[in-house]
Amino acid sequence: MADRTLGLDVRARSGPGILHELTGVIARHRGDIASVEIVERTPESSRVYFEIESVLDADALVAEMRGTASVATIAVVETFQRVYGKRIIIMGGGAQVGQVAIGAISEADRHNIRGEHISVDTIPLVGEQPLAEAVRAVTRLPRAKALVLAGSLMGGEIEAAVRAVRAEGLLVVSLNMAGSVPDAADLVVSDPVQAGVMTVMAVADTARFTVDRLKRRVF
Amino acid sequence: MADRTLGLDVRARSGPGILHELTGVIARHRGDIASVEIVERTPESSRVYFEIESVLDADALVAEMRGTASVATIAVVETFQRVYGKRIIIMGGGAQVGQVAIGAISEADRHNIRGEHISVDTIPLVGEQPLAEAVRAVTRLPRAKALVLAGSLMGGEIEAAVRAVRAEGLLVVSLNMAGSVPDAADLVVSDPVQAGVMTVMAVADTARFTVDRLKRRVF
Repeated sequence: MADRTLGLDVRARSGPGILHELTGVIARHRGDIASVEIVERTPESSRVYFEIESVLDADALVAEMRGTASVATIAVVETFQRVYGKRIIIMGGGAQVGQVAIGAISEADRHNIRGEHISVDTIPLVGEQPLAEAVRAVTRLPRAKALVLAGSLMGGEIEAAVRAVRAEGLLVVSLNMAGSVPDAADLVVSDPVQAGVMTVMAVADTARFTVDRLKRRVF
Repeated sequence: MADRTLGLDVRARSGPGILHELTGVIARHRGDIASVEIVERTPESSRVYFEIESVLDADALVAEMRGTASVATIAVVETFQRVYGKRIIIMGGGAQVGQVAIGAISEADRHNIRGEHISVDTIPLVGEQPLAEAVRAVTRLPRAKALVLAGSLMGGEIEAAVRAVRAEGLLVVSLNMAGSVPDAADLVVSDPVQAGVMTVMAVADTARFTVDRLKRRVF
């Protein structure tokens, strides 16, 4: 079990220090936490989900955690990486985001049938400041691989945010629109459905499509 | 700053024990961790994002964390709840998921313009077992408020999963389709665009639409 990621769904008491206690158990078993989420939180109890790698003895870890006073229940579960996989994020105006989503979802379906795991997440949002914040936050989203900016006019702070997340390695696709965002993107696509399809192709291991190899950047 | 959620973006060394160390600093400052994500992980370094409530002295917490040997950089950032808000999850066949997404995204746009924060996440997926697993995993997704099942035929294990997540408080909407899933859902809607719109209305604080008050369950 050492080379397999261990998914754990833990119900425990709520309050300061609980996560510190649970991660202490994991550290003692030399587990490397790949992912952690606090799924539920009420004043009395909370539910925490862990994905743990390189555990020496998973059964011993689970047994010790079960014996911890603050832990109510613990279950071994499938990992998110296996269930939801890579994420494409689409943000901007409702009309355009919806059309990009149509393309991305149809294309993700074709790849997921062949064994990929790609999900398509969207957020309709208006305004330079909220959009710039949402763009910057994408690099903090787990499993996010590419961002599509879908609108009619985006520039200023949003352009700066696009350059910042590209510098961190995120692929950014922009619709052909007014403003300076298309100049800052990796790829500019005029048709929103095509933009969604191309973005999924760019992140799918089951597709032969590499943005770096394209001879042009605007479609 | 005590009544405000503190968002922290921390770059630290990688490896077992690091999260235990970081959460130790937070526990010492009586911080209650509302959310945590491991955003990036290479063999050398990792990036962890925290949302922390009820911190006595945020500046002191940040200063102590900055002084920790395994921490490289630390930044105070906007929280996900503020940026991406509530999540609607749509899963099933690519054709239907795309149409539900169109409705959900357009409707979320209208509410987000009025101050809501709703994002629409989708996963095109095929097969009873993968879908049942994905349904069960929704209650482990942070900020997930409702699930739409969009397909032509769903039953068996998927129905059992729907009943399980509804028991945990998740709202489940199903397209009108073959199989037993519609019988297990809170709401059954025939038109996929309408299904997306109704689901967003059901979770939006800016809408007057309560599933419990509906006189019928099938539309």
